[in-house]
Amino acid sequence: MGLTLADLARSLNGRVRGDAAHRITGVATLERAGAGDLAFVADPKYREQLQSTAAGVVLLRAADADGYNGNAVVVDDPQLCFARAAALLHPLAVAFPGVHPAAVVEAGARVAPSAQVGAHALIETGATVAEHVVIGPGCVVGRDATVGARSRLVARVVVAAGCVIGSECIVHPGAVIGGDGFGFAKDGESWVKMPQLGRAVLGNQVEVGANTTIDRGTLGDTVIEDGVKLDNLIQVAHNVRIGAHTAIAACTGIAGSTVIGRRCAIGGQVGIAGHLHVADDVQIMAQSLVTSSIAHPGAYASSIKAEPLEQWRRNAARVHQLDELARRLRQLEQKMKVLIGEQET
Amino acid sequence: MGLTLADLARSLNGRVRGDAAHRITGVATLERAGAGDLAFVADPKYREQLQSTAAGVVLLRAADADGYNGNAVVVDDPQLCFARAAALLHPLAVAFPGVHPAAVVEAGARVAPSAQVGAHALIETGATVAEHVVIGPGCVVGRDATVGARSRLVARVVVAAGCVIGSECIVHPGAVIGGDGFGFAKDGESWVKMPQLGRAVLGNQVEVGANTTIDRGTLGDTVIEDGVKLDNLIQVAHNVRIGAHTAIAACTGIAGSTVIGRRCAIGGQVGIAGHLHVADDVQIMAQSLVTSSIAHPGAYASSIKAEPLEQWRRNAARVHQLDELARRLRQLEQKMKVLIGEQET
Amino acid sequence: MGLTLADLARSLNGRVRGDAAHRITGVATLERAGAGDLAFVADPKYREQLQSTAAGVVLLRAADADGYNGNAVVVDDPQLCFARAAALLHPLAVAFPGVHPAAVVEAGARVAPSAQVGAHALIETGATVAEHVVIGPGCVVGRDATVGARSRLVARVVVAAGCVIGSECIVHPGAVIGGDGFGFAKDGESWVKMPQLGRAVLGNQVEVGANTTIDRGTLGDTVIEDGVKLDNLIQVAHNVRIGAHTAIAACTGIAGSTVIGRRCAIGGQVGIAGHLHVADDVQIMAQSLVTSSIAHPGAYASSIKAEPLEQWRRNAARVHQLDELARRLRQLEQKMKVLIGEQET
Repeated sequence: MGLTLADLARSLNGRVRGDAAHRITGVATLERAGAGDLAFVADPKYREQLQSTAAGVVLLRAADADGYNGNAVVVDDPQLCFARAAALLHPLAVAFPGVHPAAVVEAGARVAPSAQVGAHALIETGATVAEHVVIGPGCVVGRDATVGARSRLVARVVVAAGCVIGSECIVHPGAVIGGDGFGFAKDGESWVKMPQLGRAVLGNQVEVGANTTIDRGTLGDTVIEDGVKLDNLIQVAHNVRIGAHTAIAACTGIAGSTVIGRRCAIGGQVGIAGHLHVADDVQIMAQSLVTSSIAHPGAYASSIKAEPLEQWRRNAARVHQLDELARRLRQLEQKMKVLIGEQET
Repeated sequence: MGLTLADLARSLNGRVRGDAAHRITGVATLERAGAGDLAFVADPKYREQLQSTAAGVVLLRAADADGYNGNAVVVDDPQLCFARAAALLHPLAVAFPGVHPAAVVEAGARVAPSAQVGAHALIETGATVAEHVVIGPGCVVGRDATVGARSRLVARVVVAAGCVIGSECIVHPGAVIGGDGFGFAKDGESWVKMPQLGRAVLGNQVEVGANTTIDRGTLGDTVIEDGVKLDNLIQVAHNVRIGAHTAIAACTGIAGSTVIGRRCAIGGQVGIAGHLHVADDVQIMAQSLVTSSIAHPGAYASSIKAEPLEQWRRNAARVHQLDELARRLRQLEQKMKVLIGEQET
Repeated sequence: MGLTLADLARSLNGRVRGDAAHRITGVATLERAGAGDLAFVADPKYREQLQSTAAGVVLLRAADADGYNGNAVVVDDPQLCFARAAALLHPLAVAFPGVHPAAVVEAGARVAPSAQVGAHALIETGATVAEHVVIGPGCVVGRDATVGARSRLVARVVVAAGCVIGSECIVHPGAVIGGDGFGFAKDGESWVKMPQLGRAVLGNQVEVGANTTIDRGTLGDTVIEDGVKLDNLIQVAHNVRIGAHTAIAACTGIAGSTVIGRRCAIGGQVGIAGHLHVADDVQIMAQSLVTSSIAHPGAYASSIKAEPLEQWRRNAARVHQLDELARRLRQLEQKMKVLIGEQET
């Protein structure tokens, strides 16, 4: 069980400091780690915890190693190495092959022999569940939908008819992949539903948070490219495309047909209007609203931070007078110009 | 299967252009459509795609028809007609009558013979499921709840005890209809739950998005009138009333006891405070916050669009100085008045 | 059945006015109440409804009692007493002991004899379901998770492996307790998942709204202390701690590792950034954004209320010119100083 310091250093391409035979079995923070735990320090503000930590082994940068006498592995990126080591020490449970007796697999569905289908799950006709997939309890894989190899629908996930989940994806409880987009045509005062005939297609190594919703496309597809990470309670509307390796924090909403670039980092509660293009490598700060396309990489924002209510009330009232204030400022400037002009003559 | 141009023109009250016998079997965008597909052009910015489309038939306005030599149906509202045609060509699956062997229908529940109840659904005692209803997999229809004719709970929907879904409604996966409202009375530092005894009542032709939540009323009911369309991840609090044919985009929240008028269009991530009245025919822009009643139709907003972070930081800092800036402006104006006054004398 | 005015006054420590033998069986608003109903008046704006109410008994303050001739119980806090009386008259259904034949309880799970496990629920191995608990239909209680005495998971709730629900909690449909936190380390352009190894731990008398998500901690735990009330569609990220008796309205998101104090009241659609401390007794207004720690009790805000779009457009445009406007104001002030200075000499 566990790993020796030597094993760890080898698998992380790191340098051993201290007792190469020391064995660890878990991971913890510097503050809580014991002799059997691996900890790490990346952020300088935690560096002083090295003085008092009881961690069996610490992952750290060369610059931090000098001040530390305990067992260590010296690496370039301690956080990344810690994530890898944690995955080695706490691997995801492997699929326990087989279909639970309380699951329903319809005739015409293909479930790989190595896949696991949990209690009260439903795999509809024409659906494909690939090798080593875990379909958790209460999930629905709709007609003709596909779940790629080694992907995991944790629990109560819906993958609607015809939608595609790539390989090595994780979809957390309550997520809905491929619900109908919000599309209607006006008919007098009422709305006529536009049938939503496209799919939601997720690439490989996509992670989708709990209760996040990704709508199917209206005619074409909604596409989530490889390596995208979506937090909880996010709304992705019909025909959106999200570029590879983009990460989006919770409660953000992206309206229909918008295309987001690759490697973007989008904060929580951000709103992005429909039919826009956002370039690669764009960061958007939490609670901002994007209403026009962003052509260049870089950081963007429109959010305002909270202050004490009494102060805020006075400032917020002025926001509603801003245009008037600006016009009064302009008038003053003109008067001043006249005044200085007169005096100069 | 499919429809001829002549059939289509007849059912849409449109005018045939080209080969009336041409047969289409599906719908697509102008860009992707082939000889068997119907496409449409409504927005002028897509008009130029008429030059290159391979669509079998295009729905368009008279004004756009002259420049197009292919098969067409000339109509007044191409988008609306396209929605109707798409529904003809891709009808929703009809209910497959019967109760799945893995569903549970409690004694005392009434399920119409033409209704379909999916795997792992639960219909509790006293509940009514009307003719041609589809109760999808994993849904719960609580004690004494009602689902009206031809309505469809797609999957994993909860309709809580006593709540009412009208006819021809669609409720998407994960929606919760009739959860408890958020009502508590203060008792020292803790909270005492106010029992939530009312219902959530949905009219006819209401559509509710994935993971949207509509709370039951505290004493009276929460009411969603006919034809209302709600997108995903919307929160509708206890005792709210939403007027007929109002459409609300994703991630919006409406606090308790607020009454929204008819035919309103409310953007995404909008917040509407409690105990307000919003008139009929009001539009509210995305991410706005409504904290007082709106008495007149028209468009309302309070959201700010994102700009590059460095610029925004400077502007946002000034927002917190606004009251001071306004007072300084006032002082300057007074000094100017004195100054000009003095000079005038 | 029901309660007499005398019973009610005794259990609420109130004073009888009128017919002590009058019997009520339900609760209602002043407007709708009949002879068998209890109503209350707390907010002065409803006081005039006392003139016309048909309520069998009214709960009211001494100050309001003089103008009312009907049956009444005079109490100090009518709203609190009404909540208590409503709970007496409409008690939550007690657990109906036993495991539904369509539920799955894995070997090694402990379900108390007085607990109820609904249809299509799953209790995984090592999990504990305590006395008088109600596990509603479609819920999943993960491996080694615990649900404390008299708690109620209403329907389709997921409690992930190892997580803890205290006693007398209510978790509404679709809530996900203990999903993975959103933690990744950068590896070139892609992301490596940080295993999420901590737990989500809820105290006693916690209420969690429909489709709310509470992530498990990365290494330590996410902690929701006793008496916390969370509305629907809230996101609580990994390693957050929420202090006892804090109440949070719908659609709010709290980022990772933030600590919220006790007895806070947080509005809807609020965003709170990660790694912050918010003091006890803080109120945060709806749709505000908190990006730095709050050290002192009191109310905080940053939200702007909607106004007619045409006005707002003009004001919002000025927000993006604010820094320039402030600099122009400064220049004018300097010119004025020179001007006044010159004139004074």
